[in-house]
Amino acid sequence: MTPHRLSVALVHHPVYDKHKKIVATALTNLDLHDIARSSRTYGLERFYIVHPVAAQRELAARIASHWQGDAGAEKNDFRRQAIDLIEVVPDLAAAVASITARHGSAPLTCATAARESAAAPVSFAAFSATTRERPALLILGTGWGLTDELLASCDVRLPPIRGVSDYNHLSVRSACAIILDRLYGDRED
Amino acid sequence: MTPHRLSVALVHHPVYDKHKKIVATALTNLDLHDIARSSRTYGLERFYIVHPVAAQRELAARIASHWQGDAGAEKNDFRRQAIDLIEVVPDLAAAVASITARHGSAPLTCATAARESAAAPVSFAAFSATTRERPALLILGTGWGLTDELLASCDVRLPPIRGVSDYNHLSVRSACAIILDRLYGDRED
Repeated sequence: MTPHRLSVALVHHPVYDKHKKIVATALTNLDLHDIARSSRTYGLERFYIVHPVAAQRELAARIASHWQGDAGAEKNDFRRQAIDLIEVVPDLAAAVASITARHGSAPLTCATAARESAAAPVSFAAFSATTRERPALLILGTGWGLTDELLASCDVRLPPIRGVSDYNHLSVRSACAIILDRLYGDRED
Repeated sequence: MTPHRLSVALVHHPVYDKHKKIVATALTNLDLHDIARSSRTYGLERFYIVHPVAAQRELAARIASHWQGDAGAEKNDFRRQAIDLIEVVPDLAAAVASITARHGSAPLTCATAARESAAAPVSFAAFSATTRERPALLILGTGWGLTDELLASCDVRLPPIRGVSDYNHLSVRSACAIILDRLYGDRED
């Protein structure tokens, strides 16, 4: 099968807080590790950490560099292999520019959200197939999710993950893992 | 569709460390939250936190109670709804006894592991169907995974999660989310 060309972006701003106010959320150490490990498992090209605050970007870079280099590799090589996918950027435009520079064409941007949308979503199967034809960027929100404006600015949008209840509060780490498995998991078993 | 009767257990002992020594791992705050939220999303009955050390069990209970009661519900009701599934127990036998007391019959125990096994695994579809016929307990390991002895003592075992590479180091939080989605996710889209 043709390899896919998906990257993922974890957005810390603009996202909502619980009162639907637009905020920048704080970096979460385990988001970096879990999403990097899921990204490596499912063959993603890059994991962009998007944060508008320079001090938070420096923190992300410091966490990443802790696991890189010889000392980190000796301590835990599987963490290093995952962390190597991380690129820290100030905004989504910088992530898009990085992918465009790598491939010579802009990525298809794909939003995710736990809430339902009026617009028809792209199916997991269709989006998976598209990412084998052109570069793409999967966009995840922290906090209470990506803003309506950001969602509307994306090219396509995946459906919300539904379980067996109307409870839709997966962590962003869990949602990312499930989405990548639905797109690329080997489900023969 | 008949509702399933699955619970999940997160085992902190007996598991391996990176040198394949049998250890008890430390409780991780985000394991509690993420696995509780995934469990609530996919309709699980209970989330058992298995730890042999009393002080660690007390810590788990304290974290849980922080989100329970009126104060926690006011702060964040969706966290409380998930945390309400948690039951803290000293060993797997206590989790099995709790399910047996609830249903009047012992659960089918199902192990998970990132490493391949000589024994043929049960498929996700077959295990999902079984959990609609009888109570079952899905067993997850922290650290470097459940011991061979514990794996061998379980009734069945799910296949390892495979992505598109031979990298198989998902976090236990991500692996749990993917397994529950493979078992019960609504994949119409």
